[in-house]
Amino acid sequence: MEQYCFGVDVGGTGIKVGLFDASGNLVDKWAFDTRKTDDAKDIFKDIADFINFKIKEMKLNKDQILGIGVGVPGPVRENGYIPNFANLGKADFNIIEELHRLTGITVRTANDANVAALGEQWKGSGKGFQSMVMVTLGTGVGGGVIINGKILAGSFGAAGEIGHILVNPDESRLCGCGKCGCVEQYASATGIVRLAKDFLKNWDKSTNLSETEEISAKLVFDLAKEGDELALKVVDEACRYLGIALAQVAQVVDPEAFVIGGGVSKAGDILIEHTKKHYVPNVMKALKDREFLLASLGNDAGIYGCARLILS
Amino acid sequence: MEQYCFGVDVGGTGIKVGLFDASGNLVDKWAFDTRKTDDAKDIFKDIADFINFKIKEMKLNKDQILGIGVGVPGPVRENGYIPNFANLGKADFNIIEELHRLTGITVRTANDANVAALGEQWKGSGKGFQSMVMVTLGTGVGGGVIINGKILAGSFGAAGEIGHILVNPDESRLCGCGKCGCVEQYASATGIVRLAKDFLKNWDKSTNLSETEEISAKLVFDLAKEGDELALKVVDEACRYLGIALAQVAQVVDPEAFVIGGGVSKAGDILIEHTKKHYVPNVMKALKDREFLLASLGNDAGIYGCARLILS
Repeated sequence: MEQYCFGVDVGGTGIKVGLFDASGNLVDKWAFDTRKTDDAKDIFKDIADFINFKIKEMKLNKDQILGIGVGVPGPVRENGYIPNFANLGKADFNIIEELHRLTGITVRTANDANVAALGEQWKGSGKGFQSMVMVTLGTGVGGGVIINGKILAGSFGAAGEIGHILVNPDESRLCGCGKCGCVEQYASATGIVRLAKDFLKNWDKSTNLSETEEISAKLVFDLAKEGDELALKVVDEACRYLGIALAQVAQVVDPEAFVIGGGVSKAGDILIEHTKKHYVPNVMKALKDREFLLASLGNDAGIYGCARLILS
Repeated sequence: MEQYCFGVDVGGTGIKVGLFDASGNLVDKWAFDTRKTDDAKDIFKDIADFINFKIKEMKLNKDQILGIGVGVPGPVRENGYIPNFANLGKADFNIIEELHRLTGITVRTANDANVAALGEQWKGSGKGFQSMVMVTLGTGVGGGVIINGKILAGSFGAAGEIGHILVNPDESRLCGCGKCGCVEQYASATGIVRLAKDFLKNWDKSTNLSETEEISAKLVFDLAKEGDELALKVVDEACRYLGIALAQVAQVVDPEAFVIGGGVSKAGDILIEHTKKHYVPNVMKALKDREFLLASLGNDAGIYGCARLILS
């Protein structure tokens, strides 16, 4: 009798569900909207209903399901307790107990950025590395640290918060975390746009950036690839801050490799080149020679990592 | 037949050796000078001779010795290979193989700052914490990260290099590591003295610091405790940089506690108070509530940690 597991990646707007066989092959995947609610328990009710329905629909037996791995936004303890749930409503309950109660299936959980890192280490660009750091450049900057093939969750589930590494003590604008000068303020999609707008103010040479009303991180990278001098300056500055942040992370955990993912990483090799260029002079000698790779699983990294929580 | 192990902490000037029983009690300890040599293998020959002699002298049987744990300055891989050996002569050999060849006893090894952290977590101030970061404030600033009761060594033995976390991008003076603005440049004994000299230049109020020719970190702390305004400013500035550095470390590994050791930590509670004061505003909300403790094993932390490498 074939065995399976579910990987469930809970995001602010959508929930991704993957069904994996016991060897870690993705059999099928689905997505549905995250319910807008004041009580995060509702979201887990939706997940349980979906999984119970799929098991019935696919004529599976519950004994065939090895477990459900769940990735959630915000810190989560290994025992499943979530004190608060980012912007997904009030929490203060135990995910593992709640989802087990509703499905009768074994549940394991970890932070969403951490499961994405685990997914990339297991089946993506990090394959072959036992220790690896993933940084996800999206609206914000997330991170995950993998040591000996396992997530470094931290004592209260708050490890791998790479987005909030200090890179500019002179910054006066506030980061979403309440501090100033975090790498997220420069290397996230939002941060890159802000850097571009700042740089434009004092730019008197020609650039294609100023001609457009809507500046996006994608546009900045596209123009940089075409040789636009200002766009290149913005890319280099964002990558300088990212390189500095990753150098600090390296000095703490000494990973074999860095994997860069998230929407911004679609920019490709230019991002790797500029980040590595600034990482090297900012890190100790013993750590200069580390691999820098683009993530390869895209939005599926999370569900792979969730499955790995069960299949490890 | 009672069983024992040796803990050997190799330093630049001296080598400390501890004999422990199987329960981790320190039975006896000795120290001898580190030989000045161009070939680090000589140092391991001295260690082997010493241990072989002690075994004979104490009428022990080699079967009674569970192993030798060795802490060495500089990065060392878990398999025992050392590429270079700080300032103790040329290396490029395997410590474990070398010392086993000379003694016939099982050998395990780790970096000196890491074994000190392990010692404090096992038998010192970190007792009761499964994850802990130790920072050692001496001539330089060393660090060790303990996760689930084990050293986080890193992929090439270079994890826990907390002394070289960037805290001041505006610094133009070089750190020993070749970069600028590392926390070691401000929070080490040397760094504190330099801060004091810098601050003195622009100080026109009264202070007892200027009256002395020889400024030491101890003097700065002593005067700060007596209420000397300038000394307090220096202490606060050194602790500000240390607090910022530890905040970055927390965001990567989320430890339960920080333990501060090394010569500078003899200053006592004033160091903890000022460091925590600057840690809190510089770290994410989920990480603010962490313990800060003074190390309690002093110079023995290393030999305890070395013993723990064998007795874990």
